[in-house]
Amino acid sequence: MTAGTDSALTDTSRRCIVQKFGGSSVASAELIQRVARRIAATHAKRGRVVAVVSAMGDSTDELISLAHKVNPAPPSREMDQLLSTGETITAPLMAMALERLGVPAISLTGLQAGIRTSSVHRSARIVDIVPQRIIDELERGRVVVVAGFQGVDEALDITTLGRGGTDTTAVALAVELSAERCEIYTDVAGVYTADPRVEPRARLIPEIAYEEMLEFAAVGAKVMHPRAVEIGETYSMPIVVRSTFEDQPGTLICQHPAMEDRQKIRGIAHDSGVAKVILTRVPDRPGIAAAVFGAIGKAGINVDIIVQNVSHDGFTDLSFTIAEEDLSRSRPVLEEVAREVQAEQVVADTGIATVSVVGTAFLGTPGMFARIFDALSAQGINVEQITTSQIHVTVIIARDRVADAVRALHAEFELEHD
Amino acid sequence: MTAGTDSALTDTSRRCIVQKFGGSSVASAELIQRVARRIAATHAKRGRVVAVVSAMGDSTDELISLAHKVNPAPPSREMDQLLSTGETITAPLMAMALERLGVPAISLTGLQAGIRTSSVHRSARIVDIVPQRIIDELERGRVVVVAGFQGVDEALDITTLGRGGTDTTAVALAVELSAERCEIYTDVAGVYTADPRVEPRARLIPEIAYEEMLEFAAVGAKVMHPRAVEIGETYSMPIVVRSTFEDQPGTLICQHPAMEDRQKIRGIAHDSGVAKVILTRVPDRPGIAAAVFGAIGKAGINVDIIVQNVSHDGFTDLSFTIAEEDLSRSRPVLEEVAREVQAEQVVADTGIATVSVVGTAFLGTPGMFARIFDALSAQGINVEQITTSQIHVTVIIARDRVADAVRALHAEFELEHD
Repeated sequence: MTAGTDSALTDTSRRCIVQKFGGSSVASAELIQRVARRIAATHAKRGRVVAVVSAMGDSTDELISLAHKVNPAPPSREMDQLLSTGETITAPLMAMALERLGVPAISLTGLQAGIRTSSVHRSARIVDIVPQRIIDELERGRVVVVAGFQGVDEALDITTLGRGGTDTTAVALAVELSAERCEIYTDVAGVYTADPRVEPRARLIPEIAYEEMLEFAAVGAKVMHPRAVEIGETYSMPIVVRSTFEDQPGTLICQHPAMEDRQKIRGIAHDSGVAKVILTRVPDRPGIAAAVFGAIGKAGINVDIIVQNVSHDGFTDLSFTIAEEDLSRSRPVLEEVAREVQAEQVVADTGIATVSVVGTAFLGTPGMFARIFDALSAQGINVEQITTSQIHVTVIIARDRVADAVRALHAEFELEHD
Repeated sequence: MTAGTDSALTDTSRRCIVQKFGGSSVASAELIQRVARRIAATHAKRGRVVAVVSAMGDSTDELISLAHKVNPAPPSREMDQLLSTGETITAPLMAMALERLGVPAISLTGLQAGIRTSSVHRSARIVDIVPQRIIDELERGRVVVVAGFQGVDEALDITTLGRGGTDTTAVALAVELSAERCEIYTDVAGVYTADPRVEPRARLIPEIAYEEMLEFAAVGAKVMHPRAVEIGETYSMPIVVRSTFEDQPGTLICQHPAMEDRQKIRGIAHDSGVAKVILTRVPDRPGIAAAVFGAIGKAGINVDIIVQNVSHDGFTDLSFTIAEEDLSRSRPVLEEVAREVQAEQVVADTGIATVSVVGTAFLGTPGMFARIFDALSAQGINVEQITTSQIHVTVIIARDRVADAVRALHAEFELEHD
């Protein structure tokens, strides 16, 4: 992606704002009208607004369930043709709601918005944006409502961007249009030290660096997807995460937060939507892991945590986590891979979850690990597996202990205090 | 539209069949699977099948009602972006169902299928079809499932074809691909002498000429839209109307039905989905009708029956029928027109319906009119207005007397006998 070359785009006084509204913000006609009023207010103040919208509420899940009724293993290319309609429905409804408020507006599909992607269905990457139509419509004074999550490949086949797709559309468009900032509107007030539904004492973080947000997002904080944060970081696009329905400043994600303390635990993230997959008794030859993860990656399935157990008698168990929602379509690929590497069998465990402690404090403070284990074991929570980076520690635990673990760790690091 | 120039297209042994499935045939996952089995059977026998599908059941009505919730007068351009998703959902579901049966299949949107239209939203006309993608996919042995009812204009804005749109897509594709025939699958077994739900003694018509079918369709026989029949007639494309769920031959619409009797009453059609609009006390100047119907036509609204009443004191009432479903979006246009021509007011009456007697027998048999009026008056049914062509007589009556009128006329012309 390249920044626009039109000098009008870099004229600060005429820069646009990109606003993204997720599924829960547009789940009904009433909510769409509420969001339209918010967009109209920005339009009145600022003039140039691009709104990126998700599918209404659970409509994507309904389409998936319809697809599975006609075919338990639907081809990904057809799933994309189907699933893209979710966002394609929201966009014109939002444009209509804006028109009713007297705000000129036009909806665009991914294709019409010039969003070109790779051909990896269900998790395509944006390779280019041809924004001329958007620019033309903004010049005409219209709010441009773009259907998120979708694009087209070279053959004009519809693709979807996978998880975090609409966030990705929004940030990528903001970059391409040299927007002043990208605002992510959601059903929470911003980024918290833990999920407030799990830990009521969780505190809003006013500013956070891209790299910390990336870690947060990578380990399960649902508020934003890491792909979108990464694009923001690469192009230094300021991202604001805030509530759709409360007029609060939210969380600013940027390069150098004003009040940053580099020796802090930022917060606790958790993810109950993961499944553990184990390939049992794999012959322990060099290149086995590459073969397994190469094939899985080619199928467009993201692997999160990889654990290769100690080898016994020349065999090893290879276990890793994937999104639980990817499990059923991963099955045929995993079975195929298991045959190829002569694994004994494929076992899937959906009774697990991950809980992560995120923060730069891990740099050079080894005592931190002990605090995490002690806090969990005091609650009788067993740690099945563990992975770490320089800015996070993630543990795999039983899914039914997630809330207890989040609260224990939040208290341990005194995150309820600033 | 021009016939394909690729010689492969005119090689009879390799000609494709186009099959169209309407909304009631694809209203659920189960029905989609049933239809997929029928397509698969044709594919096994014939190899080259293009299936054109409508939106599932009432899904278009649901989208319309959603739109009206956010904006009582939604812009037509946005309505098209929205409504096209109905067919775009069915097509990949059908392709998935076929794949599950082991039949290679691919779904295409109107854009992907190369369907180029005018820019008159909600009642666009097909101006060109670029069928290369369809031909390529057929060559690969795939069933091609095309989303009916939709296309794109030059700006790549999505358009919908209005009423009869999916029939129109199917027949136009059959012509463009030089198909052997176009099969219209529906919830009835073919074209009947009257709607069998109203007159149980109605008889299936095995063969009918394009011109008679056109009249039938024009006066309300829902089984096929006149636009689609007209394309079939222009390009001599044989059209078969038959039941989706019974294996019966149906009705063949062609140039010269084998057993045609040119002095016959073909059947009775009715239409309860009409509204009468009256512009009252219009100053009776030359060019008034042209001004009124020009403006209405420009707004993409079809007028069916026009009656200009006798002038009194230089004023006249101008009344005409339109589809009831067009009434609400016609309102602003009609009010505007009424102001321009200085009409007193616009009155709409939705308590009416039309009943038509169709057949070439009208050519030179004046006694026919008397039989129609006598049959209706014997039932105490009042005829409000009447129009005729060489092959039909249409009367406007009270909507609650439609069934009685259909049965009375069916009996009068002894249509229950061959």
